[in-house]
Amino acid sequence: MASPATFSAWTLSGSILSPNASKNDSEFVCNYPNVCLKRTLSASADTSYSWRSRNGKAIDWRGGKLSHKSEVQCRAMKVESKPSFSLGNKFQLEDVIEAQQFDRDTLSAIFDVALEMEKIEKNFRGSQILKGCLMATLFYEPSTRTRLSFESAMKRLGGEVLTTENAREFSSAAKGETLEDTIRTVEGYSDIIVMRHFESGAARRAAVTASIPIINAGDGPGQHPTQALLDVYTIQREIGKLDGINVGLVGDLAYGRTVRSLTYLLAKYKNVKIYFVSPEVVKMKDDIKDYLTSMGVEWEESADLMEVASKCDVVYQTRIQRERFGERIDLYEEARGKYIVNQDVLDVMQKHAVVMHPLPRLDEINVEVDVDPRAAYFRQAKNGLFIRMALLKLLLLGW
Amino acid sequence: MASPATFSAWTLSGSILSPNASKNDSEFVCNYPNVCLKRTLSASADTSYSWRSRNGKAIDWRGGKLSHKSEVQCRAMKVESKPSFSLGNKFQLEDVIEAQQFDRDTLSAIFDVALEMEKIEKNFRGSQILKGCLMATLFYEPSTRTRLSFESAMKRLGGEVLTTENAREFSSAAKGETLEDTIRTVEGYSDIIVMRHFESGAARRAAVTASIPIINAGDGPGQHPTQALLDVYTIQREIGKLDGINVGLVGDLAYGRTVRSLTYLLAKYKNVKIYFVSPEVVKMKDDIKDYLTSMGVEWEESADLMEVASKCDVVYQTRIQRERFGERIDLYEEARGKYIVNQDVLDVMQKHAVVMHPLPRLDEINVEVDVDPRAAYFRQAKNGLFIRMALLKLLLLGW
Amino acid sequence: MASPATFSAWTLSGSILSPNASKNDSEFVCNYPNVCLKRTLSASADTSYSWRSRNGKAIDWRGGKLSHKSEVQCRAMKVESKPSFSLGNKFQLEDVIEAQQFDRDTLSAIFDVALEMEKIEKNFRGSQILKGCLMATLFYEPSTRTRLSFESAMKRLGGEVLTTENAREFSSAAKGETLEDTIRTVEGYSDIIVMRHFESGAARRAAVTASIPIINAGDGPGQHPTQALLDVYTIQREIGKLDGINVGLVGDLAYGRTVRSLTYLLAKYKNVKIYFVSPEVVKMKDDIKDYLTSMGVEWEESADLMEVASKCDVVYQTRIQRERFGERIDLYEEARGKYIVNQDVLDVMQKHAVVMHPLPRLDEINVEVDVDPRAAYFRQAKNGLFIRMALLKLLLLGW
Repeated sequence: MASPATFSAWTLSGSILSPNASKNDSEFVCNYPNVCLKRTLSASADTSYSWRSRNGKAIDWRGGKLSHKSEVQCRAMKVESKPSFSLGNKFQLEDVIEAQQFDRDTLSAIFDVALEMEKIEKNFRGSQILKGCLMATLFYEPSTRTRLSFESAMKRLGGEVLTTENAREFSSAAKGETLEDTIRTVEGYSDIIVMRHFESGAARRAAVTASIPIINAGDGPGQHPTQALLDVYTIQREIGKLDGINVGLVGDLAYGRTVRSLTYLLAKYKNVKIYFVSPEVVKMKDDIKDYLTSMGVEWEESADLMEVASKCDVVYQTRIQRERFGERIDLYEEARGKYIVNQDVLDVMQKHAVVMHPLPRLDEINVEVDVDPRAAYFRQAKNGLFIRMALLKLLLLGW
Repeated sequence: MASPATFSAWTLSGSILSPNASKNDSEFVCNYPNVCLKRTLSASADTSYSWRSRNGKAIDWRGGKLSHKSEVQCRAMKVESKPSFSLGNKFQLEDVIEAQQFDRDTLSAIFDVALEMEKIEKNFRGSQILKGCLMATLFYEPSTRTRLSFESAMKRLGGEVLTTENAREFSSAAKGETLEDTIRTVEGYSDIIVMRHFESGAARRAAVTASIPIINAGDGPGQHPTQALLDVYTIQREIGKLDGINVGLVGDLAYGRTVRSLTYLLAKYKNVKIYFVSPEVVKMKDDIKDYLTSMGVEWEESADLMEVASKCDVVYQTRIQRERFGERIDLYEEARGKYIVNQDVLDVMQKHAVVMHPLPRLDEINVEVDVDPRAAYFRQAKNGLFIRMALLKLLLLGW
Repeated sequence: MASPATFSAWTLSGSILSPNASKNDSEFVCNYPNVCLKRTLSASADTSYSWRSRNGKAIDWRGGKLSHKSEVQCRAMKVESKPSFSLGNKFQLEDVIEAQQFDRDTLSAIFDVALEMEKIEKNFRGSQILKGCLMATLFYEPSTRTRLSFESAMKRLGGEVLTTENAREFSSAAKGETLEDTIRTVEGYSDIIVMRHFESGAARRAAVTASIPIINAGDGPGQHPTQALLDVYTIQREIGKLDGINVGLVGDLAYGRTVRSLTYLLAKYKNVKIYFVSPEVVKMKDDIKDYLTSMGVEWEESADLMEVASKCDVVYQTRIQRERFGERIDLYEEARGKYIVNQDVLDVMQKHAVVMHPLPRLDEINVEVDVDPRAAYFRQAKNGLFIRMALLKLLLLGW
């Protein structure tokens, strides 16, 4: 969910918690199957309630362990002390909706867990820490690469998966269900939902509705936060640091949500310098440039890929999307051929630098680059697995 | 399968059991992979055979435990005593084909198991009682909601799933396989088949062919027995009883297989009164009314939803299906707007009463109803999980 | 992979192994995630290298146990002795690409493992020997029968599956990824890839790229090696031998890859006689006839199914494919009705002989044949499960 404040407002105005008199305390009952625990946890942070399941047993929600196995109804009772949401100093992750929700410390903590996951994945038999947990992949449009990455992450940790790439059927003309109703149904079958949707904001709507964690696996032109996380993680793994680095962003900077999210996250680090290298028609937009300036991040536009490549720790190449050019195939052809990463680019790059790409690639990186140790893009794809393992672990088991 | 008698007839007339001389007993050999056990169990009930696997080891078929791991060939030998099909007093469930196959006692026993399943599902790690068992979901048309519910049920019990929503490929023009051949192939890969088909009667054909249990997950306009079971189970869970209740069925009563099956099952209980509230064009058909009358069940048609709602324990709302109205969109619009469950209806309902709906809903229940504790439809959807867990347990492990 | 020689050439010319000076030995570093081990193993067979992971630990690659969990980079060092690729006398299976890769001894060894698998499959709880292993089914065209068979095989051994029947999405116009890039991505998520593709040779390309084992589940008009293996295995299981048998191949002999591959494998056995029975338009092509002659295998064309059936141990019927006849539906109708296996054919067949068919069947085998013990085609389909279990075990665990 976006913020506890938002939730509480929604929760109360929606009358989900209806007051219910009792001897010594104010009681609230909520009425959705499985809904109450996560929802009430948010409320409790604000209002100093402790929460009890229907049978009166205190709910130990720390670590999120109970959040997906809650009673159909539970109650909030006013208690003396305000319960803590964190174990140690760490934020309890509830949903993964957008790159902006992560601060520098949270990123660092997630990356530590991802590093542990690399070790687990190297074991022949994987791990069983999520044994008995069930992840639903609710895809409203196909994205086989992303889906397989999440499903592999869950299974490497011993968890199980319910799959659909056919989620549009829920909301098809004949069936006509709202996203909220679909989420209320699917949360009854699973412990966590990974959702891909064609509409910006859909993941946030799902998180507001759901009592179980939601991970946004891309919602239209909006967010794809796990891609942004794996990009930053890859830089840290390959270069060894995130402060004081030079990053060249190349290709389609106007439309690619990947580079926009990455830029946003890089602004959290110190002494980062960003170079934008792109054909005129797909230049980085002003909102991001203004944001960088306001955050004190140095940036520069350049038309000289060779010069930028020679200065950078990371050359982040992206695909020019033909569909942005409509009828103007001539402009597309001109744009896509302009900045290619090939052996010449490698020759000017520093020894420790790397080439990254979110994949799939067409010919914007020549295949001759693949065999160079600085070609990091397949390792980057693999890092997506480790980041997703880490997020699943954190959302289902806590830190 | 529908009835042992039917099966035996089929089995013998089809010459599957071909006589095979032996010293002291009549022997029969059947020739399908995996077919013999279930089939021969039926025969043995009628003919007092005991059954032995190819290597002569006696088959302990009680509890159905061996039915999906049988030898390719097995033999029937005449023995002294007639073996029993039941453990204690309970019927051994072999397939789930239609709502009518369940009597009151069987329903009650299944509901007891479903209640146990609620407890299992609340455990963080679920259960492993079906570990090593494999369920095939053979869907000839997509029904994501039903499929995910079955797959979740299987996985919550530690079982595994083979999925296809593309089962029409088996019988497509190019491939052209009969349903029977498909079943004979798929039963070799799995321990139980959950089938959704577009043709009425398809599930029964599959059950006649298969040596492993078949669950009908909807066959065209025909049956959807697990929906009927979860509806009755929900009434018992919410109201606490099934005898002596008043049930209002609202909406599309002419075409909805849900309300037709529910009516049939409710007739098994005492002092039930049923109210039909529907637009003229989608009135309950005479066959069901005649059936209720013949069973001594009181029923009444009404155009006054408010009055009915005030008297009922259960208001069961359904969706009016646009596709029934062809070109007459005016009639559809008139029908769908006529009986809406909203706050006004809630206001006249009794405190203990509930609103049910098979989902998906459009606007026949206003979203303002969702937050009322009497809105039972999401709990009802969740009960589908428990009923399916119970059926999988009963079919694969026995009582 | 096709041959170590090919690989080495490719590996070296592609500069994947870039020389890297070191004190006592020649070192090579390769740069793909997960790529190095399988690839370097091949090279090592030719060049007498031993292989060490990045941290210098010797890699024990025997049994293939480490091949899918290797370090991102590893090194080859020249050592004294040439390491052995086999345990005992057995060939280490790396990929399954085409029927021709198997010699008589390998087939026999695989069949021994398949027989063990039959026993495992009969256990109620299956086996857990592949627990923690992950198979990706990468299907570029749907083939539900083959996919379910592989997925069942994996799950019967305790392994897990990532599924896509939508793999064309990777290479669709919008995404435009090469097969090689897709394989490099998917190998990061899984331990073995089962691939179905529409282009002949695609499986070989995947095997050249992948560091993990590839199984060809059919590539266009090319190969479908697991079908060929299960056919030969079925003959051995049903007839008890492969030398000295008479096999009648009936139906579409011109286009069916099944009969062509089967013929090829049968030529490895002694004193086999093959009869071709087919309508004129779909006669066996000369390349196979010439091959049989060159191998000293007796063969004969016949138009008399009854006579052939009376002499054969195996009558292998196949479906005539309508799509081969274009507009000439009259020729198709004539061809498909010409050689039907029915009760008359059974009547002349020997008692120990069997009827086989790769399925699906239309009416080229009459359903009256199904109940005869000599109808082996459903047992043959089931044998596909055992063969696939055996191959998964051999590729992931070794002999």
